[in-house]
Amino acid sequence: MPTCLINGHSSELISSYDRGLLYGDGLFETMAVVDGMVPLWQLHLDRLHRGCEKLHLACPAPNELQQEVEQLASKSDRAIMKLILTRGVGGRGYLSPPVPAPTRILQFHPWPELPRSNWETGIKAIFCAQRLARQPVLAGIKHLNRLEQVLARAEWQDPTIQEGLLANTEGDIIEAVSHNLFIVKENGLVTPDLQFCGVAGVMREYILKLVMEKGISVQIATLSRQDVLAAEAVFLCNSVHGIWPVCELDGKHYQQNDLVYALRDAVAQMIPYP
Amino acid sequence: MPTCLINGHSSELISSYDRGLLYGDGLFETMAVVDGMVPLWQLHLDRLHRGCEKLHLACPAPNELQQEVEQLASKSDRAIMKLILTRGVGGRGYLSPPVPAPTRILQFHPWPELPRSNWETGIKAIFCAQRLARQPVLAGIKHLNRLEQVLARAEWQDPTIQEGLLANTEGDIIEAVSHNLFIVKENGLVTPDLQFCGVAGVMREYILKLVMEKGISVQIATLSRQDVLAAEAVFLCNSVHGIWPVCELDGKHYQQNDLVYALRDAVAQMIPYP
Repeated sequence: MPTCLINGHSSELISSYDRGLLYGDGLFETMAVVDGMVPLWQLHLDRLHRGCEKLHLACPAPNELQQEVEQLASKSDRAIMKLILTRGVGGRGYLSPPVPAPTRILQFHPWPELPRSNWETGIKAIFCAQRLARQPVLAGIKHLNRLEQVLARAEWQDPTIQEGLLANTEGDIIEAVSHNLFIVKENGLVTPDLQFCGVAGVMREYILKLVMEKGISVQIATLSRQDVLAAEAVFLCNSVHGIWPVCELDGKHYQQNDLVYALRDAVAQMIPYP
Repeated sequence: MPTCLINGHSSELISSYDRGLLYGDGLFETMAVVDGMVPLWQLHLDRLHRGCEKLHLACPAPNELQQEVEQLASKSDRAIMKLILTRGVGGRGYLSPPVPAPTRILQFHPWPELPRSNWETGIKAIFCAQRLARQPVLAGIKHLNRLEQVLARAEWQDPTIQEGLLANTEGDIIEAVSHNLFIVKENGLVTPDLQFCGVAGVMREYILKLVMEKGISVQIATLSRQDVLAAEAVFLCNSVHGIWPVCELDGKHYQQNDLVYALRDAVAQMIPYP
């Protein structure tokens, strides 16, 4: 069984002249595999398309991608799949080649061992000092320029802390290092605006749709540090973990919240937790 | 003769799990080779060190690097060498492995064919629409997160335009896509402040030292688009091209300028132009 496909061929190696390495000139998707399938496949594909449009990159044919995903995923009841798409080799410095030959990388990762308590009682988070730069052109898409996240994640080594929240340069809270953020306020949800920075997570989108269908009020708004600390509840989400309630943030403890648990359970029907 | 060394071994391939590809988690240096030597070697090494400090990355031993550079460069009277240093493979998501094993890539490129007029009469430049985000933590260093430059360089296809100037989100001019910028004003020089964005070019540093030794006044300051258009002269510099006068910017023509030509010639003694 291959664990990595490069342009459809079993290999782990790419050219060191690939623009994905030279400039971070590309995109990625990190996807949960459940029973040989990617539950949020269409949302991942839609975001990849949006990223391709922003970067003027040709998107691979969906059926070709799906075939490769199935080839790697078919034998797994639980796994993580990472798709990386780069502009490939070539061009003159930053100038893209006239007809780029994109590199398509699909990596299979075993499901990570994580404590059940992350879902049950919730996780402990901090505020990171690292700020997210304001760059509307790159906001929302999942591109390969991720040094801000690498530097933010380097801020703590304590294994009891699972996540760090990131603010933009104005101090508004945008997201966590590898998750999007929601708060509960007056029985409704609020999640930060991602127009100027942050990744528009596929699970965030799924949750937005889910709560709107359920008639729960939800706002996309600017959230200060104080708004997050004063919230009734806070939760984080991504397409691999589903929903993690936050039980402690920067020393502040949150009470258990029925809405958060109901949403967590709804998502867990699609991506079960351990 | 190898044209690419990966950790000292002749190869072009790296792991697709390298953090340099996954996150742009690394640095690079693009260096001119003249008669088998890198004229600005020490300045490149110093900047690499500063980048390693900012990214908490172990810097390779200078003598090891120098030996590899000489191995690739020794037979060349003129070439370009690119050094890439990444945090290597591993870690858990954005979290770096406890003891990273950095990847060291050295690539040999032939000298590009460029018209002599770029140095003699100067080049034509435009203002790019793409803005540089304000990120003081990453400003100055030559890291692998270069999507802003890729998008800026995609703004023009006209081969008679050699460069595009980039402003920050406030509209101040910071640099060009692959060059730093100087203007001539009242017989002195001004170059933009790079505290919040931009790459602190090795050739910019060399020129700053050179003009200070010559007693020419030089300021690091905020430059508006209007300041650049109203300048007596404008020039661009990088460690491969040396100095290119700008003869036309956004339709405005600049007169020939003796100070720019004197500096261009001084740099050309070290890195001759065709």
